[in-house]
Amino acid sequence: MKATIYEGNKTFTVIDKEIEQPSNDEVRIKVAYSGVCGTDVHIYHGMMDKRVAMPQTIGHEMSGTIDAVGADVTGFSIGEKVVVRPLDDRKVKASDKGFNHICEELKFIGIDSPGSMQQYWNVPAFVLHKLKAETDLKLAALIEPLSVATHDVRRSGLVKGETAVVLGGGPIGLLVAMVAKEVGAQVIISEVNPKRIAKAKELGFDAVNPLELDLVEYVKSKTENRRADVVFEVAGVQPALDVMCEVAGIRGRILMVAIHGEKKPVDLFKFFWKELSLIGARVYEKEDYEKAIELITANELPFEQMITDVQPLTNIQQVFENIDNNPDGLKVLMDCQL
Amino acid sequence: MKATIYEGNKTFTVIDKEIEQPSNDEVRIKVAYSGVCGTDVHIYHGMMDKRVAMPQTIGHEMSGTIDAVGADVTGFSIGEKVVVRPLDDRKVKASDKGFNHICEELKFIGIDSPGSMQQYWNVPAFVLHKLKAETDLKLAALIEPLSVATHDVRRSGLVKGETAVVLGGGPIGLLVAMVAKEVGAQVIISEVNPKRIAKAKELGFDAVNPLELDLVEYVKSKTENRRADVVFEVAGVQPALDVMCEVAGIRGRILMVAIHGEKKPVDLFKFFWKELSLIGARVYEKEDYEKAIELITANELPFEQMITDVQPLTNIQQVFENIDNNPDGLKVLMDCQL
Repeated sequence: MKATIYEGNKTFTVIDKEIEQPSNDEVRIKVAYSGVCGTDVHIYHGMMDKRVAMPQTIGHEMSGTIDAVGADVTGFSIGEKVVVRPLDDRKVKASDKGFNHICEELKFIGIDSPGSMQQYWNVPAFVLHKLKAETDLKLAALIEPLSVATHDVRRSGLVKGETAVVLGGGPIGLLVAMVAKEVGAQVIISEVNPKRIAKAKELGFDAVNPLELDLVEYVKSKTENRRADVVFEVAGVQPALDVMCEVAGIRGRILMVAIHGEKKPVDLFKFFWKELSLIGARVYEKEDYEKAIELITANELPFEQMITDVQPLTNIQQVFENIDNNPDGLKVLMDCQL
Repeated sequence: MKATIYEGNKTFTVIDKEIEQPSNDEVRIKVAYSGVCGTDVHIYHGMMDKRVAMPQTIGHEMSGTIDAVGADVTGFSIGEKVVVRPLDDRKVKASDKGFNHICEELKFIGIDSPGSMQQYWNVPAFVLHKLKAETDLKLAALIEPLSVATHDVRRSGLVKGETAVVLGGGPIGLLVAMVAKEVGAQVIISEVNPKRIAKAKELGFDAVNPLELDLVEYVKSKTENRRADVVFEVAGVQPALDVMCEVAGIRGRILMVAIHGEKKPVDLFKFFWKELSLIGARVYEKEDYEKAIELITANELPFEQMITDVQPLTNIQQVFENIDNNPDGLKVLMDCQL
């Protein structure tokens, strides 16, 4: 089989290797598609070289079918379509208070252990979610990032009739916007890249450029001055941190989805004055995956338009180089059987 | 009657004036005690001169008895003991979403309109809360700051068995600690002033100095490594903002009680990583006053030890000068009938 290997120094190689038997608690998946996550791009850039044990196969946004089942695994059969929730929480402790998905010694499969950018992939059975036979495996490769969005929206407590402002219209921002709209909220996307704004509009969203208008005044005009009930900070830049406290209305909830690598100035006075909440959200829990699977299965949201490129697995080096040169693209999938 | 007037320039004067009749929707209160709030000290320091219409009678932490009742006021009788919830929300709008206590055009009585540091005080009847006849009026002057604490604790969702860390052992910090303990939480106070640490210990609290030990390790040792479920940031200084994200455990809730006048660096990565929440809390709602009244009426917490001085109203200038020279004191009450 073909497997890809991150070697460090912005280099992937493609190797031929033997297909391995799953151990007793594992299944072997024939990987259909493996999407490129922002985290994979960070790894490619060498930002996570301290964490990733090179050479390593990365990748965690995937879909596939079961190809072999370990001796102790029950409830799964060869040929079933599945996705992986890539959280290895086997080292959970009492001090994690039952929040297994963010437990202190969580291992992320595809970063801390081998991932899905290969043709066959052995994983412990407890990370599997089954799909229906009719599920489109291309769309199913979006279930992992969509679960980030269903988690963010669930954590926000967003309900029908509220207004959500999404700061940042990249892949996660758009998925958050879709889930928020599906809840029944009014959604406004703030994005500075004109091509991404155009894409968001194509997807049916109210998308504006905060460099070209006053975002706070715009949101006030759309909410009879109530401003946003929920703000999703997905941009990860200081102007987003500044505007999030302004655009949120009284008792507004701000979801911290972006990863800020260093301490950043925050207007804490506004938290006091308007009784705002800042809510951190990371990965997903089982029920977020189930919700994402339900949405992908129903296929009533414009998921297909999220996939802007599908490339053979063996083109991996070129795929990552292209992503660097094309900030307008959304989700790129690797076809792992080509 | 005697009334005190803030004149600006760190100056109070005491004047004689006529006792006024309440208007139709007002009652006249014979003020028993009026406590000095940190906000009053800010006003004395000139920090709020743009907001306070000088010359102005300030003060809002008070207790008293009804002395006269306006023509349209029902349900109140002369001689009844009362406290004032000093929030004038008459300009509330739909965009305030029912959060009257922090509505955009809220007027704070005692800052934006005349306050309680006088012998008789006319207020609109809707701000009154009745006390039982046997209530100690000295303790009742603590109901306003205690309501800040009951509001903070209610907003935190703190429940029995959880651990709360209170950053800052001044008057509000101690009241928050008392309410948290009454809920059934384990409470740890972090304070750098040795006299305040001693006072907190006198009040029965586990109080530590973060300059003398590693607060995070201490809290871990007291929680089987779970760290704090709730952190109350009452200190208002950068080291508190730094440690709050460290001392909070997975899914910890951090209450922003302190007022930070400018943007401050915050470790947003920790919010993402541990799914922390930052929850702003300002003043109080009706039910927080009711809870505070219940606690003061029961008098089972060490409220009396919070009152470190009682001075005649006419000593107001000296009282404010002394507070500046004595950072170890807790609550000073003005006896408004002396």
